[in-house]
Amino acid sequence: MTDRETNTADILSRRSRALGPTYTLFYDEPLHIVRAEGVWMYDAEGRRYLDAYNNVPVVGHCHPHVVDELTRQARTLNTHTRYLAEQPLELAEKLLATMPREIGNIIYTCSGSEANDLAVRISKAVTGGTGFIITDYAYHGTTDTIAGMSPEDGVPLGPGVYAIPAPIGPEGIAKFGDRVHQCIERMQAANVRPAALLVDTIFSSDGVVSHPPGFLAQAARNIRAAGGLFIADEVQPGFGRTGDHMWGFARHGVIPDIVTLGKPMGNGHPVSALAARPELLDVFAKHTRYFNTFGGNTVSCAVALAVLNVIENEHLIANARSTGEYLKHGLTKLAQHHSGIREVRGAGLFLGVELGANPAARLPPRQETARIVNDLKRRGALVGSTGREGNILKIRPPLTIVRAEADFLLSVLDQSLGAEV
Amino acid sequence: MTDRETNTADILSRRSRALGPTYTLFYDEPLHIVRAEGVWMYDAEGRRYLDAYNNVPVVGHCHPHVVDELTRQARTLNTHTRYLAEQPLELAEKLLATMPREIGNIIYTCSGSEANDLAVRISKAVTGGTGFIITDYAYHGTTDTIAGMSPEDGVPLGPGVYAIPAPIGPEGIAKFGDRVHQCIERMQAANVRPAALLVDTIFSSDGVVSHPPGFLAQAARNIRAAGGLFIADEVQPGFGRTGDHMWGFARHGVIPDIVTLGKPMGNGHPVSALAARPELLDVFAKHTRYFNTFGGNTVSCAVALAVLNVIENEHLIANARSTGEYLKHGLTKLAQHHSGIREVRGAGLFLGVELGANPAARLPPRQETARIVNDLKRRGALVGSTGREGNILKIRPPLTIVRAEADFLLSVLDQSLGAEV
Repeated sequence: MTDRETNTADILSRRSRALGPTYTLFYDEPLHIVRAEGVWMYDAEGRRYLDAYNNVPVVGHCHPHVVDELTRQARTLNTHTRYLAEQPLELAEKLLATMPREIGNIIYTCSGSEANDLAVRISKAVTGGTGFIITDYAYHGTTDTIAGMSPEDGVPLGPGVYAIPAPIGPEGIAKFGDRVHQCIERMQAANVRPAALLVDTIFSSDGVVSHPPGFLAQAARNIRAAGGLFIADEVQPGFGRTGDHMWGFARHGVIPDIVTLGKPMGNGHPVSALAARPELLDVFAKHTRYFNTFGGNTVSCAVALAVLNVIENEHLIANARSTGEYLKHGLTKLAQHHSGIREVRGAGLFLGVELGANPAARLPPRQETARIVNDLKRRGALVGSTGREGNILKIRPPLTIVRAEADFLLSVLDQSLGAEV
Repeated sequence: MTDRETNTADILSRRSRALGPTYTLFYDEPLHIVRAEGVWMYDAEGRRYLDAYNNVPVVGHCHPHVVDELTRQARTLNTHTRYLAEQPLELAEKLLATMPREIGNIIYTCSGSEANDLAVRISKAVTGGTGFIITDYAYHGTTDTIAGMSPEDGVPLGPGVYAIPAPIGPEGIAKFGDRVHQCIERMQAANVRPAALLVDTIFSSDGVVSHPPGFLAQAARNIRAAGGLFIADEVQPGFGRTGDHMWGFARHGVIPDIVTLGKPMGNGHPVSALAARPELLDVFAKHTRYFNTFGGNTVSCAVALAVLNVIENEHLIANARSTGEYLKHGLTKLAQHHSGIREVRGAGLFLGVELGANPAARLPPRQETARIVNDLKRRGALVGSTGREGNILKIRPPLTIVRAEADFLLSVLDQSLGAEV
């Protein structure tokens, strides 16, 4: 064995001893990553990979401004929200300024799961309902309650949770509002009072659905008419990734009751939040106080402020739009040469490429997608896969990606699609 | 108004506008903290306060080694557990080395709430049960499920959750094991299968109960005999604070099925974990995978490793024992001069001082305790209060506290107890 193989074998065996068996790894041959910078990650041998998998390092890996602010604040003060401090207020004001004025309050949490879990607690307290509608391959998080709203993870739906088909394809999109309505009727027939419709506004796990803008509006109206809330899960699409707006819901012209934020918020630092209409939190506050030890601490807020400043100062939403369009156009052109590509979807730098079977290699869509993901890694690009059939490439590079890097991604994907198997 | 008052009024008004009404502040006159170092926090006017409230900055505020490791890793790589990396393995191995060999696996999460919530998910999956036993003024976290196991927060118990009296006073302690047994019988009579007994091993919110070591053992045996698990919530007592061992459960000679870690783990950085017997996770893994985006990221693990190294290198468990004994002895001496002190409890640097009424000022115990907490702040020391009657001072300085600082705390407490009201 080479040194590298010895080292990888050693890490794998230590990992299987010390970590729980619930952990999984990417790739047939797992990657040992040791450093990262901008859009690039580097393995233990010094090979570099374009990171188009991850929507977490939104301003690029190890962005110096973000690291500097993290360091500065960590050297000065890390404390919680039961003392007065500037950082959580400045961050809340900056976040709220990016949202419709109806959304007036922020509550800080540590992960997207915690933000969605709190949104559920608030929905139940405010509506008196227990019924939740989600899409049927959604992912919203890992807490006991939210795992029951995350069918992607394969666990049974929780009590009061109803799954409807995701808005996939023209018919699915056209029918989405009606399906919410029909689900409410089923719920009411079972004497379950609707609490909320919870959707990821770009349907990441369901397979990336972005167009036409506006199709979510009817669904939101329907849940509201039944006394429920509309929760926009922005954990994956948020922070400018869709290229039009800061938030995915804005593309649909809807104003949510609750918005949840997570993954990219701290560029990797564990910080998340919930934004809501103040009148809802007034009701919730009559039921309970809410304190989250790490949520809204001065360091996490300084980091999230730095991320917002970089998004603004480096014009990353505009880059998500322009480089995203460039990349999408390139993918659409690839589709003309590769019959394996069924459809290219998405907005900004949140793109989905639906793949079909590979008849020459006798691979059905799921296996062909897994082959492409592993082959892309060998060629130096990291992308994920998603969807109920596991046949959608999920492409989400840092918003700092430039055209030459997009060209590299297109070129290796072209090679992978055309490779002999 | 002075500049300081203007500034505080401004921050208060921004806070009530931007943050939700579920937020609360400490103190009749809230503190605006701007920096901290070691055991001291500094307000906007430069006044310093001995921080004996907080069990989070366990190695002292802004510890240089922890900040350096945070910075170093944040500059190098912040990524998740789906790639191979050294940091999560090294941390897991180091944590497991502090635990009985029966506890063999670590799963990373971001907050104590997430760790307890995952412990509940695992307990349900492994036992097939839905019944949980907690103490009647416990606090275990804020998720939808865990809030229902945290009566301190005033929300109703969740489905399947049974509260028993905390082991307060000699009779309460002696009867604790029996009460668990009787609760299991009530549960079974209601056709609820026991899943777990979940206790904070120093009963922080119930009012701090540390002695005699060993009293938890019978309770743990009883839940196991009924097919349930014993979950040791070490979020508050863990990481050496009790002065005898790294973990509170070790004082009781019990080996838990699941251990949850949180608050001090990253000295303020959002990181937490769950440790468990591998055979339990083998069963859980058959039900579901578990992935937590921020949990176990390379930066959080580097920070937690730095905290463990400081605890070891600066001999902080020994200091928790010796300075803790010194402080407890001083408090016991104060009790001889101040009839307002009913009892001094606790182990290491996790101390509880139960207060009675102040007859001269006609203040019942809860109000007298609130008076002391606010008066101590004016005299430069920060302590919390807890317990069902709100009459227990909760004293938890960083484990780096030295005798001169303990003397300062004793001296201001002496003044507060004797102050004319």
